[in-house]
Amino acid sequence: MNSGINRQFRLKTRPIGDIKESNFEYREEPIPSPKDGEVLVRTIYLSLDPTNRIWMSDIPQYMAAVEIGQVMRGVVIGVVEESKNPNFQPRDLVSGMLGWQDYALAEGNSGSSITRLPHPLPAPLTAFTGPLGATGCTAYFGLLDIGQPKAGETVVVSAASGAVGSVVGQIAKIRGCRVVGITGSDEKCHWLLDELGFDAAINYKTADLETALAQSCPNGIDVYFDNVGGSILDAVLTRVNLHARIPLCGLISTYNATEPVPGPLNYSQILMKRVRVEGFIILDYLPRWSEAIGEIGQWLNEGKIKYALEIVEGLENAPSAILKLFDGNKKGKLVVKVSDEPT
Amino acid sequence: MNSGINRQFRLKTRPIGDIKESNFEYREEPIPSPKDGEVLVRTIYLSLDPTNRIWMSDIPQYMAAVEIGQVMRGVVIGVVEESKNPNFQPRDLVSGMLGWQDYALAEGNSGSSITRLPHPLPAPLTAFTGPLGATGCTAYFGLLDIGQPKAGETVVVSAASGAVGSVVGQIAKIRGCRVVGITGSDEKCHWLLDELGFDAAINYKTADLETALAQSCPNGIDVYFDNVGGSILDAVLTRVNLHARIPLCGLISTYNATEPVPGPLNYSQILMKRVRVEGFIILDYLPRWSEAIGEIGQWLNEGKIKYALEIVEGLENAPSAILKLFDGNKKGKLVVKVSDEPT
Repeated sequence: MNSGINRQFRLKTRPIGDIKESNFEYREEPIPSPKDGEVLVRTIYLSLDPTNRIWMSDIPQYMAAVEIGQVMRGVVIGVVEESKNPNFQPRDLVSGMLGWQDYALAEGNSGSSITRLPHPLPAPLTAFTGPLGATGCTAYFGLLDIGQPKAGETVVVSAASGAVGSVVGQIAKIRGCRVVGITGSDEKCHWLLDELGFDAAINYKTADLETALAQSCPNGIDVYFDNVGGSILDAVLTRVNLHARIPLCGLISTYNATEPVPGPLNYSQILMKRVRVEGFIILDYLPRWSEAIGEIGQWLNEGKIKYALEIVEGLENAPSAILKLFDGNKKGKLVVKVSDEPT
Repeated sequence: MNSGINRQFRLKTRPIGDIKESNFEYREEPIPSPKDGEVLVRTIYLSLDPTNRIWMSDIPQYMAAVEIGQVMRGVVIGVVEESKNPNFQPRDLVSGMLGWQDYALAEGNSGSSITRLPHPLPAPLTAFTGPLGATGCTAYFGLLDIGQPKAGETVVVSAASGAVGSVVGQIAKIRGCRVVGITGSDEKCHWLLDELGFDAAINYKTADLETALAQSCPNGIDVYFDNVGGSILDAVLTRVNLHARIPLCGLISTYNATEPVPGPLNYSQILMKRVRVEGFIILDYLPRWSEAIGEIGQWLNEGKIKYALEIVEGLENAPSAILKLFDGNKKGKLVVKVSDEPT
């Protein structure tokens, strides 16, 4: 990376069904130079997230799809290498949607904006890829603002061992709720129970979901933080309490579908139980991120929130690493380490 | 009815698909006598509503299903004939869920409660079967509390010429919204446009719904008051604006289905557009009914809200009349006149 080369992965073809490594094209370009108002950022960590799959498809979505030939979009934690912008100095740690590449321009007319991380850092830099980053803020606002859990209520979260779900469950515990996590392996169930303090965990691959939810949620379900949609949502709808809230954060079970996936068979329960289903995207909460980061940071320091990271070394492995998001074997936040943290 | 006989229709069998007259059993019983604390009410108007179909099925629902052999449940406007309850006097006009019969006991240990209508009446008694009754309150709270329309926004309502939908659209107009109604005939479209002041009306039986919505809603859809579910909801979801609200009032398109009906194919738009879908049942708003009735009553007197009634004469016709709710030929509120109003 000191070779003057900027390695990139660009979107070559849109996936049909599962992502394939061949959907990306490797390119080498010269490291760009910032113009007036611009900043050159070196990528340290590249975040891989289920929502990346949405961006790769040319479907109606919450922001523009990545165009064929564009650098693949991705959230990056990086360091300013060169600045022609008075608001940023070399060595500033920043985050932004800078893409799958070693270097990116930001600010000015670059089309990308960046946010400076706090100095000194209140936690390891990697925490900003997870609980202090977009996934932590997603958990925080989705659960608290939209789910509005009250102490004593039962909160169920799917993809519970993922970067968002694991934080959702722990915040719900802090708020005094009974917390039930749904995940895809016994090993991950043990992690939720033994390390993160969940009250119950369900392996949806081996359990009869309706039976397991009935056993785990003797008082019904008040909040269901939905990361997956599909059949898990259907099972949850059989157990929701009156006026339950369903923050709709993701529909990962449907992202790789090649045909339209209908809504839940038990959709009518939304009427019968007067349920509120509300979609949200963390970008809408940008003005309030400091609120989330402040409180989550405190919980991290108090040991009330734990997190797992799966760090893949090397930008060259991003196209294969992203497949881990969908194979059910990942725990916590998936990150590609692209270059070293500043010493 | 002065014969001392209480004519009744009881639920004989649960409908499979469409309601059939044979689902009801005609019975004649003696007129009951009130015990201490009870009131004898003579039925004047029997309200027929789509939600009656839900009560006839043994599915999970918002209140207990009607049991086989029970008098069919229905909302009644009646007059007190005899009272052993100090809160009610003979000739009081009341409403309550008193069922498909000439006479019913209420209050005390009867298992039924009644509400006295205001005296003097601020509007014709029939208005209390519609805009000043459950359907008017449903429109009021569903639109204003859950839909939260703002002036200038676009409100779409399905089953727009029905008892609820027609009031929803008129309240939305009062609040300064652009209002688009979806209904099932050109004649009903004309009524919405020419009599009720809707901005646009779509005949879903002849129009291409997505195209028609695109034309009628050039600024997208901010509130969709859903009475029907199904394919209309799917079409609406292709046009919703960011942070749209969908008060889920009914799913009439699915009530007669013999197989589970999945949720909308475009369910993912709830996430992408950060939509709020919220089911509600008017019973939850009972403590606030006077608020709705006060404001709707004023609008009625000012001529800002109009309503249509379809009055079927004679309790004996209730089992055939209820079919009109589902054949798409009804306009406004469907009511059975069981006996004469007091003079």
